[in-house]
Amino acid sequence: MNPSNNLLLRALRREVVERPPVWLMRQAGRYLPEYRATRQQAGGFMEMIREPKYAAEVTLQPIRRFGMDAAILFSDILVPLEAMGMALKFDEHGPSLPEPVRTRDAIDALRLVDPGESMGFVGEALRLTRAGLPDETALLGFCGAPFTLAAYAVEGGGTKQFSYVRKLMYRDFESYSALMDKLAEQVAAHLRYQVACGADAIVLFDTWAGTLTRLDYLRYAAPWTRRVLRDVAGVAPRIVFAGDSGHFLEDLFEFGAEAVALDHRTALGPAFERARGRCALQGNFDPAALFATPEEVLRRTRALLDEVGGRPGHVLNLGHGVFKDTDPECVGAFVQAAKERAS
Amino acid sequence: MNPSNNLLLRALRREVVERPPVWLMRQAGRYLPEYRATRQQAGGFMEMIREPKYAAEVTLQPIRRFGMDAAILFSDILVPLEAMGMALKFDEHGPSLPEPVRTRDAIDALRLVDPGESMGFVGEALRLTRAGLPDETALLGFCGAPFTLAAYAVEGGGTKQFSYVRKLMYRDFESYSALMDKLAEQVAAHLRYQVACGADAIVLFDTWAGTLTRLDYLRYAAPWTRRVLRDVAGVAPRIVFAGDSGHFLEDLFEFGAEAVALDHRTALGPAFERARGRCALQGNFDPAALFATPEEVLRRTRALLDEVGGRPGHVLNLGHGVFKDTDPECVGAFVQAAKERAS
Repeated sequence: MNPSNNLLLRALRREVVERPPVWLMRQAGRYLPEYRATRQQAGGFMEMIREPKYAAEVTLQPIRRFGMDAAILFSDILVPLEAMGMALKFDEHGPSLPEPVRTRDAIDALRLVDPGESMGFVGEALRLTRAGLPDETALLGFCGAPFTLAAYAVEGGGTKQFSYVRKLMYRDFESYSALMDKLAEQVAAHLRYQVACGADAIVLFDTWAGTLTRLDYLRYAAPWTRRVLRDVAGVAPRIVFAGDSGHFLEDLFEFGAEAVALDHRTALGPAFERARGRCALQGNFDPAALFATPEEVLRRTRALLDEVGGRPGHVLNLGHGVFKDTDPECVGAFVQAAKERAS
Repeated sequence: MNPSNNLLLRALRREVVERPPVWLMRQAGRYLPEYRATRQQAGGFMEMIREPKYAAEVTLQPIRRFGMDAAILFSDILVPLEAMGMALKFDEHGPSLPEPVRTRDAIDALRLVDPGESMGFVGEALRLTRAGLPDETALLGFCGAPFTLAAYAVEGGGTKQFSYVRKLMYRDFESYSALMDKLAEQVAAHLRYQVACGADAIVLFDTWAGTLTRLDYLRYAAPWTRRVLRDVAGVAPRIVFAGDSGHFLEDLFEFGAEAVALDHRTALGPAFERARGRCALQGNFDPAALFATPEEVLRRTRALLDEVGGRPGHVLNLGHGVFKDTDPECVGAFVQAAKERAS
């Protein structure tokens, strides 16, 4: 892959491109029958992640079927927590960490690890994926942002309340900071490792950031996100995603990342005006609008691209990951809307 | 209760008041030991709702303990769906409707019912609550908004994807409209009934509205919300809550409701500027910030009130319901911050 003429990398540099690059968050996933077949063969979700041949296979599947401009490594944002010493399980309700980290001792016991030694399967999956990718397709690595990893580590899984992490941050800021410091260092190392193994750009996912008010985000999450972004500046282009973050978009624009990913609640045209060329914008088709007919998906995606109006620095994507009940034909229509723009 | 000098009703009319009225969404709930005791006595969640003496008891509990300016009837937004003919269950994962409505026949089979005949326990609970309330405390009735009820009715419970209701709205708008028409009529009847039984004001909860883009909200939810609000105009003051709705706040301000409830993501000061006196604003303390210490809750609530700066038409509340792990002392600190403002 040649970075000087790769469509995604050019868009991340806000160059004028012949058409917007397109990929979808969670494009390797349960909505694809070939993914479900590989998962059955592998024996489970974590088994796919830990075995490079399966991880590479499901990473490549959507590229083969739809020809997106970027593949994102099939893995999970919680993989580094496992490497740091936390037990990690997946079942039909999602991830769980049965031994959550809620005391200073537990935080201090988390290990900072060398990704190549502890998560070599990630690097190997990246190398295998790169070998199987068309030359023009970019390969993305990713990691969870420190706040989102802290939320999972402290809560022990998904939650609506986030009571434990909130109590930690509000009532024992010193321990919270110690945890965030450690996570930021591990996250940066994980991203650098993925670039060393072939990732062309990286995505930092802060899934839970939008549950915070702007002031709490700036105090309890942003400093460590910025630290990670600084640590990997110049290593590879950086895309930062914070879920449901319309209320602190201006702050995200200031982080120095090459791109900010928007969710579907934020209108894309006005967001370009607000970004004022500080970064590229990724997004932001409503993933649940993929439940419309393929014709309607095509029409809506065209309307989204018309709203962007060919402004430089747009990466077409969803506002959140593909849902498992999505009709693959609708994903096809979404990708087609980008590809048909080529002049 | 005398509407001409009730603090909440005066704030909803945007009169200058001596201090902001305060109540909390889900203030009757699991965070209170006395609630848990009543629930155990009643035998379950639905049992409390269906038995007026229990419903009134838990409605009164937070008023006795904290002295909020309004009590909101303990019930559930899905009660009308059950009355319309849908089976309804509650367990530790939340509500479920085991026979979701996904076909035109199922939609047509939903019954429009007289609330007094089918949900007489609601009216009786309101009367019992009123009898037990201090004279100066307002009593609120409520109902789910049509879109949120439709989402539950079609999905059969909580979900992240909303695939069935999206497919229905996008692919069979005629059936979707038929469902929404029916729900809007039942919702309006339910609200009028509650006012007839003693509710001083009503709250319309559109929990899932914020999952929609603005354009989809305007097309698939707002018309029916507006219809309900029109149907009950002049009957009692109307508070409309739409979760995570910062992206269509301007539209909510146009609905003619006496108040719009904001979630914690929207900054309250600027929201008052944007509302330009069209309605009162309710909110919007982050419910998860109640996990801070009582001192910090007091400090933050004072800061929120300072941001409002005594503008008329503010009802102090959370941005969402109280979480079950909340320390009652923190709710007390929140209420205190409003009460100490009395001159």
